[in-house]
Amino acid sequence: MRTKKIVLAYSGGLDTSAIIPWLIETYKAEVICYCADLGNSLNQEEIGKRAMSLGASEFIFEDLVDEFAQDYIAPFLKSGALYQEDYLLGTALARPLISKKIVQVAKNKKAFALAHGATGKGNDQIRFEKAWSFLAPELEIIAPWKIWDLKGRGDLLNYLKSKDFEYSEGKKTYSEDLNLMHRSCEGLDLEKIEKNYDSEKTLLWCKKKDRKSEKISLSFKQGVVTSVNGKEQSISESIKALNALGSDFGIGVVDIVEERVNGIKSRGIYETPGCTILHFALKQLKQICWSKDLYTLSQRIGIDYADLIYKGAWFSQARVCSQAFFEQASQLLSGEVCLELSLNQIKVCSRSSKYSLYQESLVSFEQDEYGVLEASSGFCKTLNLISKQEGAQYECFKNQA
Amino acid sequence: MRTKKIVLAYSGGLDTSAIIPWLIETYKAEVICYCADLGNSLNQEEIGKRAMSLGASEFIFEDLVDEFAQDYIAPFLKSGALYQEDYLLGTALARPLISKKIVQVAKNKKAFALAHGATGKGNDQIRFEKAWSFLAPELEIIAPWKIWDLKGRGDLLNYLKSKDFEYSEGKKTYSEDLNLMHRSCEGLDLEKIEKNYDSEKTLLWCKKKDRKSEKISLSFKQGVVTSVNGKEQSISESIKALNALGSDFGIGVVDIVEERVNGIKSRGIYETPGCTILHFALKQLKQICWSKDLYTLSQRIGIDYADLIYKGAWFSQARVCSQAFFEQASQLLSGEVCLELSLNQIKVCSRSSKYSLYQESLVSFEQDEYGVLEASSGFCKTLNLISKQEGAQYECFKNQA
Amino acid sequence: MRTKKIVLAYSGGLDTSAIIPWLIETYKAEVICYCADLGNSLNQEEIGKRAMSLGASEFIFEDLVDEFAQDYIAPFLKSGALYQEDYLLGTALARPLISKKIVQVAKNKKAFALAHGATGKGNDQIRFEKAWSFLAPELEIIAPWKIWDLKGRGDLLNYLKSKDFEYSEGKKTYSEDLNLMHRSCEGLDLEKIEKNYDSEKTLLWCKKKDRKSEKISLSFKQGVVTSVNGKEQSISESIKALNALGSDFGIGVVDIVEERVNGIKSRGIYETPGCTILHFALKQLKQICWSKDLYTLSQRIGIDYADLIYKGAWFSQARVCSQAFFEQASQLLSGEVCLELSLNQIKVCSRSSKYSLYQESLVSFEQDEYGVLEASSGFCKTLNLISKQEGAQYECFKNQA
Amino acid sequence: MRTKKIVLAYSGGLDTSAIIPWLIETYKAEVICYCADLGNSLNQEEIGKRAMSLGASEFIFEDLVDEFAQDYIAPFLKSGALYQEDYLLGTALARPLISKKIVQVAKNKKAFALAHGATGKGNDQIRFEKAWSFLAPELEIIAPWKIWDLKGRGDLLNYLKSKDFEYSEGKKTYSEDLNLMHRSCEGLDLEKIEKNYDSEKTLLWCKKKDRKSEKISLSFKQGVVTSVNGKEQSISESIKALNALGSDFGIGVVDIVEERVNGIKSRGIYETPGCTILHFALKQLKQICWSKDLYTLSQRIGIDYADLIYKGAWFSQARVCSQAFFEQASQLLSGEVCLELSLNQIKVCSRSSKYSLYQESLVSFEQDEYGVLEASSGFCKTLNLISKQEGAQYECFKNQA
Repeated sequence: MRTKKIVLAYSGGLDTSAIIPWLIETYKAEVICYCADLGNSLNQEEIGKRAMSLGASEFIFEDLVDEFAQDYIAPFLKSGALYQEDYLLGTALARPLISKKIVQVAKNKKAFALAHGATGKGNDQIRFEKAWSFLAPELEIIAPWKIWDLKGRGDLLNYLKSKDFEYSEGKKTYSEDLNLMHRSCEGLDLEKIEKNYDSEKTLLWCKKKDRKSEKISLSFKQGVVTSVNGKEQSISESIKALNALGSDFGIGVVDIVEERVNGIKSRGIYETPGCTILHFALKQLKQICWSKDLYTLSQRIGIDYADLIYKGAWFSQARVCSQAFFEQASQLLSGEVCLELSLNQIKVCSRSSKYSLYQESLVSFEQDEYGVLEASSGFCKTLNLISKQEGAQYECFKNQA
Repeated sequence: MRTKKIVLAYSGGLDTSAIIPWLIETYKAEVICYCADLGNSLNQEEIGKRAMSLGASEFIFEDLVDEFAQDYIAPFLKSGALYQEDYLLGTALARPLISKKIVQVAKNKKAFALAHGATGKGNDQIRFEKAWSFLAPELEIIAPWKIWDLKGRGDLLNYLKSKDFEYSEGKKTYSEDLNLMHRSCEGLDLEKIEKNYDSEKTLLWCKKKDRKSEKISLSFKQGVVTSVNGKEQSISESIKALNALGSDFGIGVVDIVEERVNGIKSRGIYETPGCTILHFALKQLKQICWSKDLYTLSQRIGIDYADLIYKGAWFSQARVCSQAFFEQASQLLSGEVCLELSLNQIKVCSRSSKYSLYQESLVSFEQDEYGVLEASSGFCKTLNLISKQEGAQYECFKNQA
Repeated sequence: MRTKKIVLAYSGGLDTSAIIPWLIETYKAEVICYCADLGNSLNQEEIGKRAMSLGASEFIFEDLVDEFAQDYIAPFLKSGALYQEDYLLGTALARPLISKKIVQVAKNKKAFALAHGATGKGNDQIRFEKAWSFLAPELEIIAPWKIWDLKGRGDLLNYLKSKDFEYSEGKKTYSEDLNLMHRSCEGLDLEKIEKNYDSEKTLLWCKKKDRKSEKISLSFKQGVVTSVNGKEQSISESIKALNALGSDFGIGVVDIVEERVNGIKSRGIYETPGCTILHFALKQLKQICWSKDLYTLSQRIGIDYADLIYKGAWFSQARVCSQAFFEQASQLLSGEVCLELSLNQIKVCSRSSKYSLYQESLVSFEQDEYGVLEASSGFCKTLNLISKQEGAQYECFKNQA
Repeated sequence: MRTKKIVLAYSGGLDTSAIIPWLIETYKAEVICYCADLGNSLNQEEIGKRAMSLGASEFIFEDLVDEFAQDYIAPFLKSGALYQEDYLLGTALARPLISKKIVQVAKNKKAFALAHGATGKGNDQIRFEKAWSFLAPELEIIAPWKIWDLKGRGDLLNYLKSKDFEYSEGKKTYSEDLNLMHRSCEGLDLEKIEKNYDSEKTLLWCKKKDRKSEKISLSFKQGVVTSVNGKEQSISESIKALNALGSDFGIGVVDIVEERVNGIKSRGIYETPGCTILHFALKQLKQICWSKDLYTLSQRIGIDYADLIYKGAWFSQARVCSQAFFEQASQLLSGEVCLELSLNQIKVCSRSSKYSLYQESLVSFEQDEYGVLEASSGFCKTLNLISKQEGAQYECFKNQA
């Protein structure tokens, strides 16, 4: 008889480490550990060794940085969407990619189940499980944190010890997420929302340096960054370069209280330097290349789009159809944006595009080839019509009251 | 026979100055000049003298700073809305108040017409005219720039000279708007959108100073600021205090290309230090006091609400009804927000409210009195249902293709 | 020691009947049965007897028809909202009222828990529980269908028999909901969505009669119906009268597949004759009294508003704030609407309101006092501006491609 | 020297007939008359003769019925959008196609200007001019009704007489628009909105016949109708067949007061039998094939989409990008819908699709393979969380007040 197989989303951390022997024990199954590098500088060798020493039957490691940048970050940035007006969704965007790869492994290896180490209080459980449900409705999902009796860090360490595995305790740290796009922190003292966070301790990327302001130029083709300071490179390379730059100026740090999908309000600190710069730059292009009608519509759709991604519905009809809108709209976003970075600040120096709707001759007070001035009487008079009617109605309304 | 009367929105500038004799001459009418202080530090005496010397029959000056703050800025800030995600609508909010006062004067004085000096290329013409159309549909509206033959500054100066009035030319300056809320600049070299603006020349408020970061505390009652650093004061006093502080740190400067109501793309630089701080602080309260459903709905309505104000429809059914939504929603926005201001940056240090939905015991990983963890299996399983169905559909769809 | 008390939402049906002894047995508690008449013509005496015979310690019956009409149906109709463009939410609107009354009883009687008989597959569980959670976060909620081992009708009957209670089986019927507003059917053969429903069997209200078309006149004050055919009466009386009329003409029948909150697609047949007529009539007033801006905004908000009610969030910040919008907007909806009812059809014959924005003199081709024609050149020329720019951009875009 | 050329959108009616000699006279130009058949059963020969006899240099006639159906009606129907919840935009959809063809002629013939006969009070002027502005920003637009001194029908007849052209007066009729999609009426007694319209006089399509109800089956592929009652045919053929059927049952008649782009409220009667049936049928497919998230999002976008088309922005960034959304979403809309048509009514008998999300096993009360019931406790408990918090906040709020 063939042994049953489970594929585990393995991070190398305490939680997913304890899950390995627990799965083997509980399901009498082989555990295949899948670990992906999305820009989080993982130590592949160390993590792999740990997985195998804990009993994993196989350790699979993939570098997905480019795929992450091309197929998740770039499409998202085209939308200009932000969650709750601030958050660039760095975690929510990474989950569907990892989920997809794990499904591929599971199908290859003929596994019967997928497992993750996310707890029952957060959003990640939902993101993993919804993606897996969509991509492989036939596979079982195992979420040990919702099943086992272990309660917190201490129990995990004891459990591992009972399996003869020494896990170096280390000190309690923030619940952290890290990838090409961002670094996030939750937990511990951050749970006190009436307290300031300690920048030294909390921000590991955005260590401001005492440097002079710096100008950078960015090129975009159809909404996708193609070069930084004239250097053509992959999207991920551009983001890396901008992460480095932005961090020095303290750009892209957000401290928000968000409402998780389950209704719990929680506080997170996010560092997203490079993509904050790209988001800002794209907005400049939109201002000149998109009509107000399109801009407004993109804002409306962006609210839903960000919400879908936040709640784990990257793989869903609604997200895919919204994406089609943004793909079409970003066809117009080709051009150059020059920015000046300085402490805590991005300033636009220049924006230009062959698709720009901006026309100096139109706006200039001195010129009027098009005849805007002459047309304005009729324009205003027509716009006034509905106001006059509403006003007359209002008079009548007041008199009745 | 009684002389006909016209009430003119008079600013003391070149345009409205030239309009005085032109109206008298053209309409054989008395011209009553109305000038309001909305926080723009006008020289009442000088402006009044100029008006009278140009032939005005009366000069009326009113200090509307408090009314502006209470009835326009405060209601707007409750909404959290921004035009095109950035602009706090400082100009658009001032116009309806001035328009309303002018209508009151016109009704008192039994004038037959209202006049403004806005050109046919901008938004202000629309804002004046729509407000007037609503408030006094029976009054005539005169917009000299759309009627007379004068074309630009030179013509105006010559016209005034021909009326024996010497207007000191001064140098060409930005088209500027100034009030309690903000200072804006347009025109001249700013019309080159591929050029950086010169901070020295363009920013008159936000002259950054070399000062240490500073913490401030703000109290809000039902969405309205009631004190700054514990000092209870009127809204306008709070805004003035925050303008002073924010300016030193360079807060609230925006450089955007917007699309005017008439379809012309134009670039404006806005300095809105105090209200940017208030907007930021209120957002912190919303994050803890509003459910996500309410927050999201306020974003949706905010898009339309900002658009209505931008296009001159402050006095309109749709704005008034949206306002009712925001008034209700801001009932929950009472509490304290502590911020740290530093160069180009506002950081939240603390937020608290008796209406806060944030509960540390819920979010904490260690506790679970409510039973979130146990409930999470059923929660996720239910959420996965639609994903599984969409996924199965997708498989089918792929296979057909 | 005082006995613990549970208040049960009692309908008199099989499910809630079986729940009485089960609660007593399981919780060693007194069970207070609460039953409300929302227009469902309940047999109070019979239902009360049944409850008491099953062991209830008390039976409370209230006639809530007027409260339902005034505080739930009328506010809802002001919105013009429909769920999925078709459904008037007759069930979803009734639940919060019943829930509120039960909480009042529970607080009076110092009960520790609230119980309902809704199953784990539908929406009603969510509507009861969310309302109760909001109104009495401190009370326990008991949902027997999610706890006990009974599985379906047969088990219930056996359980009751085991308690020496004979429940007349009757024949299997649709899962039905009935109140002043509507009658709905689900289940049995309706679950075959590729089958037509049998009008005879399914529709108990809308039995079309062979009668001539009939004109009716409706008066509204601030969005609320005040008289039908000149007869001033309470809202509930108006709805009853319109239910009777509308049913004869087969008005207000909808057959839809909706997605429940839990992601299950289900099919329902709804009969809502009277409120369909009121909805239609109010739409006529909106068309003449509301500007397009307000109309459009009400459509946008209506989508969320209907969704909130559907998902059980009547008692929620977001619903209450949306309501404030609609209350304000309906201030303008006073007037008369005359309709002609005929088979399957409502036709508008006449609409009038002192707040009407419709002006025959404006629309008439022959007259033009306002000068619309003259203004139209400037109006169109200005509107064309952005199209010309977008068109030029498009040319450029095509040439690149 | 070459003669200048103008292309005129020629309908054969009084207005555009008078325009021919007027253009020749006023611009000393050749006038090329363009006339298109979009399903309006025009008498090509008669119209052509009239144009030539009035001095046109050329008469061009095209049958665009299929193009209209494929490239305008079908994409629109995919959206499910309605203007003001009722109007299928039959006129607004026809204008961009005619405009596009006229631009092609103008470019071929090297005309310098385009002319239309729409008045300055309606929407058509805007639709023609915005389309032309987009497609040929370089061409001049001539709108005689806004320029000449002729005022109404009498003047036109006199003008034509003065040019020795006898135009048979006929009697005054409604302002009518007619094409494959719909027939609309405005004007005359319809301008009295407090009066019922006379069906006999007003409705020329929907002459109800005394026939028995009839079942029809429709097949759709990716949102486009492919067959009616099993007969595969072009879209336009299907619409024609459904127009014939629907008319007999009086389907698709709407009487609305709409607000024109210029703020004038006007009343129109629309007959759109075939497309009303298609709209209804597609809605049935959406209910089963689209998730609620997608359905809701399509409603939101639909509001803007319909508005764009209404206001003449078919050719615009925003419409094109919205279309991309609907094209993607309609990929799922393949299947069969069976309807029963009876007097004034469309009833769905059956809906099925290989992409259906409806699952009888899920909804059925008796079965529960997926475990919905078990999951429901955790699901509800989690949904209750935010309600409990909002409720507690509300208590606090009440106590403060």
